[in-house]
Amino acid sequence: MRWWGWGREDRRLPLARPFAKMLDTQLGLDGRAREPVALADVALPEPALAVRARERLQQSVGGSAWVRSDHVSRVLHSGGKSYVDLVRMRAGAPLGGPDAVVYPATHEQVLSVLAVCSEERIAVVPFGGGTSIVGGLAPTPGAQSAVISLDLARLGGVYTVDPRSLTVSVAAGTRGPALEAALAEHDLTLGHYPDSFEFVSIGGCAATRSVGQASSGYGRIDQAIQGVRIATPVGELAAAALPASAAGPALRELIVGSEGVLGVITGLLVRVRTRPARQRYEGVAFDNFQEACEALRVVIQDRAMPDVVRVSDERQTEILMAAGESGGRRAPLGRRGLRGRDGVLMIVGWEGQRDSVDRRRLHAMTLLRRGGGTVIGAQAGRAWAASRFASPYVRDELLGHGVLVDQFETASTWSGIEPLRASVTAAIVEALNACGTPPLVGSQISHAYDTGASLTFTVLARALEGQEEAQWRAAKDAASATIVRAGATISHHHGIGRDHAAWAEAELGELGVSSLRALKAHLDPFGVMNPGKLLAEY
Amino acid sequence: MRWWGWGREDRRLPLARPFAKMLDTQLGLDGRAREPVALADVALPEPALAVRARERLQQSVGGSAWVRSDHVSRVLHSGGKSYVDLVRMRAGAPLGGPDAVVYPATHEQVLSVLAVCSEERIAVVPFGGGTSIVGGLAPTPGAQSAVISLDLARLGGVYTVDPRSLTVSVAAGTRGPALEAALAEHDLTLGHYPDSFEFVSIGGCAATRSVGQASSGYGRIDQAIQGVRIATPVGELAAAALPASAAGPALRELIVGSEGVLGVITGLLVRVRTRPARQRYEGVAFDNFQEACEALRVVIQDRAMPDVVRVSDERQTEILMAAGESGGRRAPLGRRGLRGRDGVLMIVGWEGQRDSVDRRRLHAMTLLRRGGGTVIGAQAGRAWAASRFASPYVRDELLGHGVLVDQFETASTWSGIEPLRASVTAAIVEALNACGTPPLVGSQISHAYDTGASLTFTVLARALEGQEEAQWRAAKDAASATIVRAGATISHHHGIGRDHAAWAEAELGELGVSSLRALKAHLDPFGVMNPGKLLAEY
Repeated sequence: MRWWGWGREDRRLPLARPFAKMLDTQLGLDGRAREPVALADVALPEPALAVRARERLQQSVGGSAWVRSDHVSRVLHSGGKSYVDLVRMRAGAPLGGPDAVVYPATHEQVLSVLAVCSEERIAVVPFGGGTSIVGGLAPTPGAQSAVISLDLARLGGVYTVDPRSLTVSVAAGTRGPALEAALAEHDLTLGHYPDSFEFVSIGGCAATRSVGQASSGYGRIDQAIQGVRIATPVGELAAAALPASAAGPALRELIVGSEGVLGVITGLLVRVRTRPARQRYEGVAFDNFQEACEALRVVIQDRAMPDVVRVSDERQTEILMAAGESGGRRAPLGRRGLRGRDGVLMIVGWEGQRDSVDRRRLHAMTLLRRGGGTVIGAQAGRAWAASRFASPYVRDELLGHGVLVDQFETASTWSGIEPLRASVTAAIVEALNACGTPPLVGSQISHAYDTGASLTFTVLARALEGQEEAQWRAAKDAASATIVRAGATISHHHGIGRDHAAWAEAELGELGVSSLRALKAHLDPFGVMNPGKLLAEY
Repeated sequence: MRWWGWGREDRRLPLARPFAKMLDTQLGLDGRAREPVALADVALPEPALAVRARERLQQSVGGSAWVRSDHVSRVLHSGGKSYVDLVRMRAGAPLGGPDAVVYPATHEQVLSVLAVCSEERIAVVPFGGGTSIVGGLAPTPGAQSAVISLDLARLGGVYTVDPRSLTVSVAAGTRGPALEAALAEHDLTLGHYPDSFEFVSIGGCAATRSVGQASSGYGRIDQAIQGVRIATPVGELAAAALPASAAGPALRELIVGSEGVLGVITGLLVRVRTRPARQRYEGVAFDNFQEACEALRVVIQDRAMPDVVRVSDERQTEILMAAGESGGRRAPLGRRGLRGRDGVLMIVGWEGQRDSVDRRRLHAMTLLRRGGGTVIGAQAGRAWAASRFASPYVRDELLGHGVLVDQFETASTWSGIEPLRASVTAAIVEALNACGTPPLVGSQISHAYDTGASLTFTVLARALEGQEEAQWRAAKDAASATIVRAGATISHHHGIGRDHAAWAEAELGELGVSSLRALKAHLDPFGVMNPGKLLAEY
């Protein structure tokens, strides 16, 4: 993973010319390229791990090779991949760094590390794929004397496969592509493809309640997880691996989404599916966003849910069309694609056995047409599929081009979607106008449910150099306050982390937050686990 | 509700003659009818509520009319409707009774009652429909000075309806039929039909993680619940009403299934569906249970899940066929129905818009036929539908006929179902053989998932008069120990209550149980909420 941005060092996806031009014109950019500082120039404080603590940690994980404090290791673990993380990193000024990076190889080693850290009062930041975009990986020691990054890279692999029950047990550090490759050998798939798929770890997905691009069909990660175990400073907590149970409150749902503040997820039992014989993605055009939403709502409420669903509003459709060739992304549709009219783009997709795909597609397409949709065919779908993991690469280019770029996301009921879209968009526009940087704000539904849908806002504006974080904060706070006021969720699929922690109480309630704190006090009595995340303070 | 059994006083459903004959022969019954004692002869201890406490409770709920200690009120709240509850009640010897029955009318009144009870050290047993069959309503004071039954009958009704988002907010005391009647006015349905539907409350369903007969299609109650609020002794805890969220651990899943030990669920936001234009239930015959399971597994894993699914094994099919006319139940199928061969019965059903039902049915039936099924048509389906709420009435007749009758239920992965069925059946048979009462044990899948299914064991044996509870305990313990040993769940849809509390730790783990206790200590610091339920002791 590139230390100052996203992805493999050998891959860059330059902006399409029409997209760059659109941004230059509409955002008032200067066209100057911005480069990150040199790796050696990234400023980190001196590592502050006491000798005894380091020795004990080395013993826990089987040697000094697995407790690292070199510059590169520390830089690579000094945060996640949020806009602010990247802005700071490119400037060589991350928010501190871990005093050491520790690599346990087994569940038992994790238990041992946590016991040591609890005794030595060392904060622990669990690190899976390193892809958090809500500050979940900030190496903040909180009230502790030092902080380690606990990298689960060695804790990878598939343990057992039950092809009949479609369940697989897997180590938490397993990365997305490695998991899918291992499952492919059994003709299976998890089907969990967040934008961060190339680097994400399955344990990280569980800890943050991740959602994949095909989660309308395959289910959110919390729906795929059948059982999970977590190592805490006081021992192991496991939620039994069952298809369903009425045995009290669901412990699984306490562990999932716990973002490392209760302990470290070390293993999971997940539901998989037979690898699809057929994948069919295509575009449907609608006159406007409301019409598209309404058609989608009817499809879903009639139980004809596609496996992939993305509905862009007018502005988002414009952005997608302009982004066109960015990152090798083919234009999802031209003017001809939208049949010469203005409108919005819906991408729908099905995966499964041939028969099942055809039957379900026919059902859904009949309803979408009835709802005003014009099927514009497979080209738009193929373009989407070809570039489905491109957006974080494109983001790097945007940062290099002087653009503030982020996605704020939430979810609401079907009745709430349109007023929420209007009010959040207005709040972001107002906040960035006040900064003197009028933005482009598009929005998109990317996951749909019987009762509502997610809503993701893409924000693009001229970055205020040297004040990027304050500028971003103005937009983020405006969006978050509006979301909370509307009774929508502060995060549909990124988690709370540090960036949403201030808003968590509004959603969880005072007694909800204090209940989670009571639980944390029970499992992490000295407060070493991931300080400052999930709940505003401990 | 009949105090000594199930249902309306004016409704009895006598055993079909072939069924009675089968039982007489196979279980060695004497054919003598057993009658319950007279209501006045039910023995209860003197009510022990202190004067000040009673006055404070009366103030909380708006007058003395809503705090009752008369014999009938106390008898009706002295337990649930488990086999043991009914055996004891028919003998006039319930496990104690509440010192008073308290009827709050609002969420605020519930909060007030719980604050009073916490201060006065009075145990509170929340009482919805009164249908628990796992001892969840036992009026045990635990360490407290007295115990009240908190009947939510006044806390009923639908608050708001959002037909576009298909969400409805509803008071927790609303009974099943009242809820469906209110929803019908909006052309909506919750579709949650447990066997206890006629009396069950929606809050009770939530507290016990109830599952309805059509939950394969409509979802378990925990899937239908979007938001929920609970009154605790220290205040209100609410889980926001959202289609989906990544904002930390799911508080909703802590409240759902909490069985009154954390507080009282007072209101819910549930997902509903448009009232089905079509309901189609039908029978499919298979040569044997394994074949039927395998066919069902394929259907579900190909995403062609029917809305209703019930697969009976050989013995259960025999019982169903013999039970025939019991309770007005038409024979689900005769020898002709199974096409003259031995075999097992699967009931499948679809509900929804005509198009959707037809499409989904065609997909599933194609696969079931391919899996060896013979479609035996709608008569079997209609027979099932006509008697879907009859079984607790029939149970009363069986008790009057001297039969031990109960259902033990669990869930497992598809790979685990067959060994679990074999081992649990063997354990029950062995335990009841040892009592000198060889049983009939049938089993049935009633809810299916991608990764596995529920499994319900119907147990019929000659009741040992005067030793019914010990005899039942022998069978229950044998079944529970076997279930736990297999790593299956101690309850798929009845909850833990008192009857499963001894087995909860095996499933939840030591740290799981202590975590729930830490949470309880936070929300119920004096331990007044439903003592002795869910967790073995506090």
